[in-house]
Amino acid sequence: MCFFFLLSELSVYLRFYLHIKEFNMRVEIISIGDELLIGQVANTNAEWMGRELTQQGFIITAVTTVGDQGDEITRAIDNAFERADILLLTGGVGPTNDDITKHILCQYFHTALEFNDEVLQHIETVFLKRNIQLNQLTRNQAFVPVSATVIQNKVGTAPILWFDQGEKVLISMPGVPFEMKTTMHDDIIPRLQEQFQTDRHLKRTYLVSGITESALATRLATFETLLPAGFTLAYLPSFGFIRLRLSTWGEARKPEMKQQGRKLKLLLDKEFVARSEKKIEALLGEKLRKQQLTVSTAESCTGGYIAHLITSVPGASDYFEGSIVSYDNRIKEELLNVDKQTIEDRGVVSSEVVEQMALNVALKLKTQCSIAVSGIMGPDGGTREKPVGTVWICTKHADELLSVEYHVGSSREENIERTANLAIIQLLKMITRKGENQMDVKPQ
Amino acid sequence: MCFFFLLSELSVYLRFYLHIKEFNMRVEIISIGDELLIGQVANTNAEWMGRELTQQGFIITAVTTVGDQGDEITRAIDNAFERADILLLTGGVGPTNDDITKHILCQYFHTALEFNDEVLQHIETVFLKRNIQLNQLTRNQAFVPVSATVIQNKVGTAPILWFDQGEKVLISMPGVPFEMKTTMHDDIIPRLQEQFQTDRHLKRTYLVSGITESALATRLATFETLLPAGFTLAYLPSFGFIRLRLSTWGEARKPEMKQQGRKLKLLLDKEFVARSEKKIEALLGEKLRKQQLTVSTAESCTGGYIAHLITSVPGASDYFEGSIVSYDNRIKEELLNVDKQTIEDRGVVSSEVVEQMALNVALKLKTQCSIAVSGIMGPDGGTREKPVGTVWICTKHADELLSVEYHVGSSREENIERTANLAIIQLLKMITRKGENQMDVKPQ
Repeated sequence: MCFFFLLSELSVYLRFYLHIKEFNMRVEIISIGDELLIGQVANTNAEWMGRELTQQGFIITAVTTVGDQGDEITRAIDNAFERADILLLTGGVGPTNDDITKHILCQYFHTALEFNDEVLQHIETVFLKRNIQLNQLTRNQAFVPVSATVIQNKVGTAPILWFDQGEKVLISMPGVPFEMKTTMHDDIIPRLQEQFQTDRHLKRTYLVSGITESALATRLATFETLLPAGFTLAYLPSFGFIRLRLSTWGEARKPEMKQQGRKLKLLLDKEFVARSEKKIEALLGEKLRKQQLTVSTAESCTGGYIAHLITSVPGASDYFEGSIVSYDNRIKEELLNVDKQTIEDRGVVSSEVVEQMALNVALKLKTQCSIAVSGIMGPDGGTREKPVGTVWICTKHADELLSVEYHVGSSREENIERTANLAIIQLLKMITRKGENQMDVKPQ
Repeated sequence: MCFFFLLSELSVYLRFYLHIKEFNMRVEIISIGDELLIGQVANTNAEWMGRELTQQGFIITAVTTVGDQGDEITRAIDNAFERADILLLTGGVGPTNDDITKHILCQYFHTALEFNDEVLQHIETVFLKRNIQLNQLTRNQAFVPVSATVIQNKVGTAPILWFDQGEKVLISMPGVPFEMKTTMHDDIIPRLQEQFQTDRHLKRTYLVSGITESALATRLATFETLLPAGFTLAYLPSFGFIRLRLSTWGEARKPEMKQQGRKLKLLLDKEFVARSEKKIEALLGEKLRKQQLTVSTAESCTGGYIAHLITSVPGASDYFEGSIVSYDNRIKEELLNVDKQTIEDRGVVSSEVVEQMALNVALKLKTQCSIAVSGIMGPDGGTREKPVGTVWICTKHADELLSVEYHVGSSREENIERTANLAIIQLLKMITRKGENQMDVKPQ
């Protein structure tokens, strides 16, 4: 009895130790490039890496973006090594003179460059495929630090450099997103998992619509207070919807996660749309495919953006037929047969017009479902009765038409994004309600 | 003579001193939020702030992203204060429990929270406008640190907090992009400019297409070596084009900038598209408006994305009429009158099909210009003859049709983006060549 007790104690101790150890598997991302600091491009690499690594059980403690300057890069590495076990550098490894990462790393690790024939051969293969002449600048990519382990870049010319520093590692990768993603998937993540033991990150994401963030937080206040230790609830508001992420670490907590998730779903009530971290356009696609429905769009103010979101999902051709973007009123009349008198009487931003658009695009493109939108995205075109941000969205499913008026905001970019999201959610709710009797439609 | 010499020496010294002083106006951005680290949302705030602040003459030295954890936020502030004069914090100021920035700042600046009636009044006004009931969580936003200067948030509920720390400042703002942008424009940037003297950042951006980055760098190698001290040339590759940014600091270097810019433009030769840092869709819009041309699109594989890019520009209704997204072949035949036999004989990804699409969409929508695309975006649908990434783009201007075959890559997301950019540049070159006899069309 005592023996068993000790064993179980030991297992608790071991689990605790592993837990601490897991929490040491900390990653910092260092993104290098003047273009990131001056805002000429967005740091989508850090976003992607954060998502992938979190899913694999690593903890991202910080992302630092610095320019192509030696002292700044060195400082960032020093700071990151103080706290993290794994440093992932992207950028500054191109063939041009402003790219200095490789030289800074030689200084940092007290090593020199040497010519690597394998890398050269690899670069030659890449250039042959692209049918481009190899020049001296690109040839120089084959000079690599002596102390680094070199990983070939399958889809580009800058090799990946892996440095061991005691128990810690630093990996330098290209900043070109496609090259970074390829090497992360194929080489870096598998090697890191082998070298560093990681625990599983458990999470459930809930898509919620038709409620503000603060109203939702008020509703969930008690639930949050009563969450077991180690559980966190995060609010991730987007345009037109909120994602709630319930998360914790470790396989052992799965039953608790299930229980808390059920409680949460009940509390979300009618505002619950789906339990998924997928994009809403991917969710819509799944439902359409499952119910063997097809869809088309008739877009005025969103100018094709809803069609773009729907077709950004691989395999969208299974359910998406096409779209008529009727930016000009004449096109609404000529291609979508919207009644001229209706436009004159009710205005182009009205339930009557979007209903005609939704009906006729479905008729013309022979789809069971359709989405039609008309609104004022700004900065100009608003009136006292219909200010910038006024939008009518009509969704069609079989014989049913649903039109809802929304007020989306005042910035053009956000208005287009929000309108497209609201339209997709409106149709998603409509077909889910029909198919599964689960949701309610409510304007947000 | 000697006196004048001294004066000129002094002016050089003064300029040097000012130069150093200017270089002290360093900004670091600290973005706060678990959602940024785990990649659930992109850090678009840092991108926007970097762009705006650089234009105003501030130097961004680093961007640090940390989670909603007190010690990480404190550490980031400590590190940033070591090097920068201005710390801009975004995020972690919402009404929910995971938002802790305000409390951490109280600890950091050894101050306490007090209730601020003005902030409450302001929040009430915002809620009244939105027609929403004010709750306790949101009421708590009116508690602000005693030692901070409070700036009202005109478009949201979390107040902006400005802390002075000797000669340095720390400003905490909401992470909601629209709220951050509004306060940056209206309050923060003007106040910073008043408090910190800034010098002008001079830059010229050149849009280049039809050449690889390394070939371009080889061509410009001598030019780069001969650049005057203080000038930098940066390569910013995008999908389908490269931007070159020539930059330096200080009004006094304007004539040199002009001279170097001219040299550069000559070297860019036929690959030069435009001297502009504007988005290509905005450039296309300007040219169309100037030449009083209208445009429509017929999109297959891009699914409405080209129309979206064109209509993302305010005022696009001046030149954009509409679009037919013919995702399914049936729609190509029925709505765009593409000959069924041509599709069977030549395949749907062919010059013949995109030419019929471009001609017929222009005819139906009564536009002088049009863009038509058909291609295989992947991951499925490729064949041996036409692998994923094969795209035909046809652009029409008056009586002229131009169709070009491109091979864009292998990732769906990037393929859609690259195809849309190439299509816009193809039409941009076509109408500029006509209008200004300046460009040549070349596949990239």
